[in-house]
Amino acid sequence: MSRWEEFYESLPPPDGFDDAKQRLHEFCKRLGAKNKIVLVTSGGTTVPLEHNTVRFVDNFSAGTRGSASAEYFLSSGYAVIFIFRQKSLEPFARHFMGLKFLNMLEMAEENECLSIKVKGSHVEGLRPVLEQYQEAEGSGRLLQLPFTTLSDYLWLLRAASECLSSIGPRAMLYLAAAVSDFYVPTDKMPTHKMQSNEGPPSISLQLVPKMLKPLVNIWVPNAYVVSFKLETDAELLIKKSREALNKYNHKLVIANILQTRKYKVMFVFPNHDYEVNLNEDEIKKGIEIESKIVDDLAKKHELYIGGMV
Amino acid sequence: MSRWEEFYESLPPPDGFDDAKQRLHEFCKRLGAKNKIVLVTSGGTTVPLEHNTVRFVDNFSAGTRGSASAEYFLSSGYAVIFIFRQKSLEPFARHFMGLKFLNMLEMAEENECLSIKVKGSHVEGLRPVLEQYQEAEGSGRLLQLPFTTLSDYLWLLRAASECLSSIGPRAMLYLAAAVSDFYVPTDKMPTHKMQSNEGPPSISLQLVPKMLKPLVNIWVPNAYVVSFKLETDAELLIKKSREALNKYNHKLVIANILQTRKYKVMFVFPNHDYEVNLNEDEIKKGIEIESKIVDDLAKKHELYIGGMV
Repeated sequence: MSRWEEFYESLPPPDGFDDAKQRLHEFCKRLGAKNKIVLVTSGGTTVPLEHNTVRFVDNFSAGTRGSASAEYFLSSGYAVIFIFRQKSLEPFARHFMGLKFLNMLEMAEENECLSIKVKGSHVEGLRPVLEQYQEAEGSGRLLQLPFTTLSDYLWLLRAASECLSSIGPRAMLYLAAAVSDFYVPTDKMPTHKMQSNEGPPSISLQLVPKMLKPLVNIWVPNAYVVSFKLETDAELLIKKSREALNKYNHKLVIANILQTRKYKVMFVFPNHDYEVNLNEDEIKKGIEIESKIVDDLAKKHELYIGGMV
Repeated sequence: MSRWEEFYESLPPPDGFDDAKQRLHEFCKRLGAKNKIVLVTSGGTTVPLEHNTVRFVDNFSAGTRGSASAEYFLSSGYAVIFIFRQKSLEPFARHFMGLKFLNMLEMAEENECLSIKVKGSHVEGLRPVLEQYQEAEGSGRLLQLPFTTLSDYLWLLRAASECLSSIGPRAMLYLAAAVSDFYVPTDKMPTHKMQSNEGPPSISLQLVPKMLKPLVNIWVPNAYVVSFKLETDAELLIKKSREALNKYNHKLVIANILQTRKYKVMFVFPNHDYEVNLNEDEIKKGIEIESKIVDDLAKKHELYIGGMV
């Protein structure tokens, strides 16, 4: 048994996994015959440090890249499977976080009947988002499945990949989630909350096997697979991206630096690379870099489906 | 210098700290003469593992207890300072997470003018929340200040405590945030993201000094201070709560078990304790345990202000 198989053997599937699997199956069956389907993963995974989890190691990710990209994939005609960290940003809903929503509303009396309306000043801003959301809901082209831990994520990733293998090259995988490289093995985890009066604990982390390898080679071999690389050190970025392409044989790494990721990414292919960015004018207009990333990718994907790359 | 003083010396104040301090000062000055003010802390703190933070250790807390309690304190007549983990639940907004909000809306044509309305079926449910929110906003009785890291939290906690000391026993501190016991000292933190090809790292954690001690004894000595204890092991709960009361000299520990915390807590005083819980009927009706906790506390606080306890 390979290391990744052993890893799955050691992790129980998450609660509700059978239901999630069935929804994935239904979605791919209903939409797969005629549509391109993209799997977008989004948000960070957690690694529990205790069995009754009070503390965990988390990866930084609000889910901005994934949730914005999902919207642009929908408007480019894709059906979207959105596998996201619970409580991270979701497509459409991301525009109305916190108290923004309540501040948009006002009460009104209409024919002696109370109604609640969106204030006039917010109608123009809200309208396109609401229309797109209702279109996506109405056409059933968006399937959202939440995860919390690394283990939840890995089970959903494999199940979605296996479903998508049935539509061959029309599947894209856009793996934007920030997945932990490390985990604490079950047998090294304390059952109860670590007690601070016993002195500070030292946490022993183990490496997670790289799932991109079986994903590209076994689970969904004909899909257009895009992975992400986030570094804080620019010097390492291209080198590490190309190493990943050599190792896993997928199509593209989208590489970004933590500090500049909102307006600049590198598309790194096995034999060439280029920058996709926002100029100052686009930044001022509030254009999101995800719209350009998805535009570019949709074209690349068309060429791939046509057998041109 | 004591350990807690050294700890503050070693941590720079968060961005925007001067502004937060001024808002706290203005709030206490405006409302402190006539009102009771409660400081509610809510959500978990993060402990960065790297200087350019990609990974951090987090404490489990969605902010349910704190955000719900803040609402009940407002309806009990308190002014509320709500210090909360960014992206955790907020009072009022907590009722409309994720896509719930967009599902409540519909577009309508009115005198040839587009408007967006809350669907009739949602008006009755939304109305009381919106009214309470607008009342709290209008009367200026709610001040919200966000934090992310342990360090941000500790700076805000001290500043709020010091402001509240001016109103003596009319201040309550309701410390529901899940604060890390551990941190990684700045000089042991790598500058860049830890690289997985260098093998799994071992994280060295240090104990955070207990801030409840200076808080109770120096920062805000006449306030009614309530701390929380969350354990996964019931056997330890009362014992550890009483140890905390002996050590820090505050008024009350609200003790709860991770698995039962939504319907049962223990009020642990130095010389007695009792359970506050929801019965089955109350659970069915959707009553929140925080309404009972706050009711009970408000009575205790009145007695304390009157010099009766």
